Amino acid sequence: MERIASRLLERINGFSDEHGVCGMLVGSAARDTWVSGEHDIDLFILFPESTERERLEIVGLLIAGSVLSDAERIEERYAEHPYLHGVVNGYGVDVVPCFNIRDPSKIKSAVDRTPHHNSFVREEISGLEGDVRLTKQFLKRAGIYGSELKIHGFSGYLAELLIIHFRSFMNLVRDAVDWKPGEVIDIKGHGARAHENPLVVVDPTDPGRNVAAALSLDNMCRFIDSARNFLEDPKIEFFFKAHQTPPELGEIRELLHKRGSVLIGVQFQKPDVVDDILYPQLEKMERSTKKLFKMHDFRIINTGSIVSKKNIYIIFELFDRELPSVKKHIGPPVWARADAERFKAKYHEKKTLSQIYIKNGRYVIEIERRYRTPGPLLREELSKCGLGKDLRDAIREQKFQILSKEELLTKSDHEVRIFIHQLLTHNDP
Amino acid sequence: MERIASRLLERINGFSDEHGVCGMLVGSAARDTWVSGEHDIDLFILFPESTERERLEIVGLLIAGSVLSDAERIEERYAEHPYLHGVVNGYGVDVVPCFNIRDPSKIKSAVDRTPHHNSFVREEISGLEGDVRLTKQFLKRAGIYGSELKIHGFSGYLAELLIIHFRSFMNLVRDAVDWKPGEVIDIKGHGARAHENPLVVVDPTDPGRNVAAALSLDNMCRFIDSARNFLEDPKIEFFFKAHQTPPELGEIRELLHKRGSVLIGVQFQKPDVVDDILYPQLEKMERSTKKLFKMHDFRIINTGSIVSKKNIYIIFELFDRELPSVKKHIGPPVWARADAERFKAKYHEKKTLSQIYIKNGRYVIEIERRYRTPGPLLREELSKCGLGKDLRDAIREQKFQILSKEELLTKSDHEVRIFIHQLLTHNDP
Repeated sequence: MERIASRLLERINGFSDEHGVCGMLVGSAARDTWVSGEHDIDLFILFPESTERERLEIVGLLIAGSVLSDAERIEERYAEHPYLHGVVNGYGVDVVPCFNIRDPSKIKSAVDRTPHHNSFVREEISGLEGDVRLTKQFLKRAGIYGSELKIHGFSGYLAELLIIHFRSFMNLVRDAVDWKPGEVIDIKGHGARAHENPLVVVDPTDPGRNVAAALSLDNMCRFIDSARNFLEDPKIEFFFKAHQTPPELGEIRELLHKRGSVLIGVQFQKPDVVDDILYPQLEKMERSTKKLFKMHDFRIINTGSIVSKKNIYIIFELFDRELPSVKKHIGPPVWARADAERFKAKYHEKKTLSQIYIKNGRYVIEIERRYRTPGPLLREELSKCGLGKDLRDAIREQKFQILSKEELLTKSDHEVRIFIHQLLTHNDP
Repeated sequence: MERIASRLLERINGFSDEHGVCGMLVGSAARDTWVSGEHDIDLFILFPESTERERLEIVGLLIAGSVLSDAERIEERYAEHPYLHGVVNGYGVDVVPCFNIRDPSKIKSAVDRTPHHNSFVREEISGLEGDVRLTKQFLKRAGIYGSELKIHGFSGYLAELLIIHFRSFMNLVRDAVDWKPGEVIDIKGHGARAHENPLVVVDPTDPGRNVAAALSLDNMCRFIDSARNFLEDPKIEFFFKAHQTPPELGEIRELLHKRGSVLIGVQFQKPDVVDDILYPQLEKMERSTKKLFKMHDFRIINTGSIVSKKNIYIIFELFDRELPSVKKHIGPPVWARADAERFKAKYHEKKTLSQIYIKNGRYVIEIERRYRTPGPLLREELSKCGLGKDLRDAIREQKFQILSKEELLTKSDHEVRIFIHQLLTHNDP
């Protein structure tokens, strides 16, 4: 990996006379903190600060293309501006143009920070690389490694900063057991503003930035909890998963029978978008559907979604197989006279299950509910929910299927069955 | 009635030389605002302000006994101090001793106010008696006449003050249609303090007192609503109930089937206490039972209680015939380390339906619920609920019965069936 990286770096530097650029190897490969599953090689092309954005984009892609000229595969990808991804000798390589900005609080593009992070870590990390790798592997096993929108976890840079601060993995976990939301770690003691996030790790290269901004409260808590469990009984399973036999169909059936709950799922085609676009929309869809169920008096026990190669499944464990027909409709306060008259006029002619009556100062009427079972509710109302663009396209015109418990267990992908088992037992994935 | 009242009054005044007392005919009979169903004759024995309380109680009862010497029946009753109730020529007569206090804001006993109310109304009511009777009858029909704890409605004195203020029943209802909670009526413009109640009618005889303090928000709203309905279509049914055929059993069954809900009741013996003791305890029991159901995830649609001659029935219309076995148990926040350890230790060895997991910063575990159906829940937990003394005695040691829908419809008193019909339809009683 090192040899390939050096060779590609030299190719970038070959353009320095013509375009004033220089190359920089960044990321975990540059810092010797790489763990399996991470980006392989990240190469940045640093342009002078004064370069026009359009020029950077065009020339940047040209240089990147030349750097990856002998790649096995090559594709254009997009962050704030386009970059190239290629596969060279089996290693994934990103070649990313950016501005070379002296003061990282004045960056012009999000990727401009990376060279500064790289310089800081390279200066400080010497001798601590092993502890960074331990930390990353510990986070990976706990399912909280990665700051991308699918994970909401700890970034690699965050793991490095924590080790630079605490000097070892053991010190870090011993400290984490007592963390509370609102924890602030400020290596340089230069933090310039307050943050709302549960964990704040001030960026040593930018006093206004929280490196842990992407970390969710629950993932912070999972780290605290794992740290306690690890200290109580330190063993290899905190870094690598023990082999588990996937659950048998009968086991899941038994589980569902014991719980006495209702399982229902929605299946639709996975839209062709990257994870950072897909997962926020998926979270939004889960939230919207929960709201839909709640509005119609269905109570949810667990919800989760799983993305397979071609399909997306959202799965709900519900309280209620069937609701009573009667539904209370709460009207306006009695003293809001105009509203009261509209309400009474509206229900005067309708077939209702009760007279209008007064409770807690408001008019109330009992009517027949529209959806007594969850299936028809999803079938009719799901596409009207608040959904992100790509998922809306994926499910509109009823291009989705409602799956019963039986269909979920027997007709869907094998991984869906494993996911259902996890959803119900909350066993570690 | 007048003749009897005069005769009894004279008897009280016969004691004036010996004890310095004088008699006063009070209440609606004294003011010509009596409607059917009210107290018949209220006679007060006014003692000088300086009388000792003990002396008032002893001598008061002696005089009252002598006044009622030829009564058909006689019994001792209690307000703040004892008084006598008798039946004379078929009329109910209360003979109540009180202190004759000049300044009504300095009364020594709650009944001392009555003579002042009586004097005020007698001076102001002349010519308005018919409108008071209309008002009372209108309130009676709406089920909101009476300030006792069973009703939480309008007292007779309040009805009189409203008519003294608005000068006619029609003026009153025309004003009431725009009432809002916080409405203040202050005939003398001397109100001395703020009140929390939805309707405030300052007592003309005591600037610190709200005559409408007993009126509940919903009963105030019912009056506003009835006033609007009456003005829209004035007819005799706003004062007297139209004849209704009681619902057939089949009709109630049909209703329940249409609603698809669950009916369950509790039956127990009526304790031998007065209404003002019984009804607050009954309200408390309804609240406690609602809380119990809620705590165990049962959702209530309607609740009500009915007191028959010998029995009390509390009846619940519920959402759920059977709940899933699985129950979420929310534990402490992850960062509360000592609590977290206790929680984990507690559920470590137990048979649970899931692993401990983290949600919204808290530990959560899924366990088997204790009560999946409402019957066993009531059977086991009802007597442990917060209950007033007399109802606690009435239901402890399982001295109560759980009635299924079928039992409620076929085995309980006829009036219970009518009550269930009202509970479900919210038809006027």
